[in-house]
Amino acid sequence: MRGGVSIDLSQMSQIIRVSAEDLDCTVQAGVTREQLNAHLRDQGLFFPIDPGANASIGGMAATRASGTNAVRYGTMRENVLSLTVVLPTGQIIRTGGRARKSSAGYDLTRLFVGSEGTLGIITEVILRLQGVPETISAALCSFESVEQAVKAAIAIVQLAIPISRIELLDRGLIAASNAYSGLSLKIEDTLAFEFHGSPASAQEQVELVAEIVKDHGGKDFEWANAPEERNRLWKARHNAFYAVVSQRPNAKGWSSDVCVPVSELSGCILRTRALLQECSVPAAILGHVGDGNYHVVFAVDPENTAELTEVAAINEAMVEHAISVGGTSTGEHGVGTGKIGYLRQEHGDAVELMALLKQAIDPQGIMNPGKILPV
Amino acid sequence: MRGGVSIDLSQMSQIIRVSAEDLDCTVQAGVTREQLNAHLRDQGLFFPIDPGANASIGGMAATRASGTNAVRYGTMRENVLSLTVVLPTGQIIRTGGRARKSSAGYDLTRLFVGSEGTLGIITEVILRLQGVPETISAALCSFESVEQAVKAAIAIVQLAIPISRIELLDRGLIAASNAYSGLSLKIEDTLAFEFHGSPASAQEQVELVAEIVKDHGGKDFEWANAPEERNRLWKARHNAFYAVVSQRPNAKGWSSDVCVPVSELSGCILRTRALLQECSVPAAILGHVGDGNYHVVFAVDPENTAELTEVAAINEAMVEHAISVGGTSTGEHGVGTGKIGYLRQEHGDAVELMALLKQAIDPQGIMNPGKILPV
Repeated sequence: MRGGVSIDLSQMSQIIRVSAEDLDCTVQAGVTREQLNAHLRDQGLFFPIDPGANASIGGMAATRASGTNAVRYGTMRENVLSLTVVLPTGQIIRTGGRARKSSAGYDLTRLFVGSEGTLGIITEVILRLQGVPETISAALCSFESVEQAVKAAIAIVQLAIPISRIELLDRGLIAASNAYSGLSLKIEDTLAFEFHGSPASAQEQVELVAEIVKDHGGKDFEWANAPEERNRLWKARHNAFYAVVSQRPNAKGWSSDVCVPVSELSGCILRTRALLQECSVPAAILGHVGDGNYHVVFAVDPENTAELTEVAAINEAMVEHAISVGGTSTGEHGVGTGKIGYLRQEHGDAVELMALLKQAIDPQGIMNPGKILPV
Repeated sequence: MRGGVSIDLSQMSQIIRVSAEDLDCTVQAGVTREQLNAHLRDQGLFFPIDPGANASIGGMAATRASGTNAVRYGTMRENVLSLTVVLPTGQIIRTGGRARKSSAGYDLTRLFVGSEGTLGIITEVILRLQGVPETISAALCSFESVEQAVKAAIAIVQLAIPISRIELLDRGLIAASNAYSGLSLKIEDTLAFEFHGSPASAQEQVELVAEIVKDHGGKDFEWANAPEERNRLWKARHNAFYAVVSQRPNAKGWSSDVCVPVSELSGCILRTRALLQECSVPAAILGHVGDGNYHVVFAVDPENTAELTEVAAINEAMVEHAISVGGTSTGEHGVGTGKIGYLRQEHGDAVELMALLKQAIDPQGIMNPGKILPV
């Protein structure tokens, strides 16, 4: 932080309380997702939000994180019940209680979820939890085109099948993952699925999905019911970023994400893919396609200005098109500094209201200055 | 509105757009819930939030409404994608887009949902929709005590059965509803259930629930699978308020609600019931017990100050106890003027932040003055 101080909450790592009865818990902001899930395992509970990295719960709340399970369980927006926040004045507030719903005043919890540290510092979080499903099954299915894969995913969402994960891994990413994670997957555009439920309901979901993907030209439907197979599959998915970057020595990862109405997803991904085909930098597309959210990862040479300019232009085209079809400049990465330039295009005059809120709560601009809104 | 003008949006009743592909729609604020659902029916879609009354969508957004289906589908908080709002300056903003998720800046949508008209006027709403489930089954089950009924409901929620409705109707309410709605239900504390899903998944939910209620002393489990039987049941539930009021000539209804962590629900309802047993005014308890939310309805003589004082004291005891166990002073009714006195107790210093937001957005206090926060 230029001219400022940086605040490290990683020592605030205490899990304060877990209630199996109420399916909720209270944790300090520095507790990580993996730490929490390891703690919950013996009680048959889990916290479903999974952005991939072993992020801290406070950071996940501050950036409105989501990830692979959001199609079923929602994002941090839906899974935070309350926050303890230190305001710029030093005053400490609690934004809500433990009730599942409330209509008692302004929704301060949602105001701070996704505020990226610009309104106050989140120190404690009350989270909703889930019971570990009786059955978890996973499957992979390859397609001849990314269009077919996306259309199959859309059909599954539109039929309201309560699927837990639908992830797109494009052929470039499969090739990179085979090399990086020691897999031998067929190099085609692929959907990865996960089903949670009772044995009967998981089985029913599987059968419905198998039928839909077949109708959309899916082939080589492959099951991974054993936990170790599933873990290998999702580990490869979580390592996608590193797999892409590892394709090129001394490269750095550069990623961006957008989210669009699902009916626009196929068109958006095809446009992005066409841009990537012209691009001189290795890149791949992956996405939480059940939500209309997808990512592009580039393996860039950070010293090469021409490359960075090329990648920035592709990003700009992708973001501007996403906004033009009713989507957002970022589905889950946050604004930070990289998406500041698109906020006005996406939100119009509502950006002025955001700036008004920032000014009212943090008039001296001491909270994470320069993020979300220009200083 | 004292000294002000009142704004009637009921003429803004246009359904602007429905997308079956994206499961969303855009409506003007004056569109009512029943109007929207009648319009959606032919497309196999529905909007699940059901506060009972045929409320307008704009009003439901402004009060963060929920109702009987919230245990499965969430409240207005989870089902509004975006709002068009006229700010006190006259500026018109749109708070979000059509993407299912976004981390692009402050969550203005959730700031206005539940703001009760005190920050701006909602004129247009983008809503998430659901596909009409293949199967809908309903059931009633009576219990010897309200405690048993509530414990059964809690066990169902804790097992994460994807039930759509679990409603408590206490014995007083059943008696009133028999008289008012021409039913002949057994006068006992009763749970009413609704199950949505594929035939197999609805059947599985039913079997699990039947087993749980049996374990909790439930009896006379009674099915209502035919649409007309179901409609009769839910109509009686929706008319509960009028049924209680009709017990006494020239009475007026007086109602209040709280919401608590489900583990506290049984204790809270038993305390409230004990207060009602001492009360001179006819009253009943009903609740969306799957969420920990319950209501009390009194049939008061509006001219009788002693009665009003008695009822206010019971309400105060109920609300203060709910807050003391981590709950909220209102689960879905909103603050209005009736719950203003409890906001500080519930939210502590966070009330000052609410006042700061109000001051920043509406410095002249022209938007629904006197609601949520004292003038």
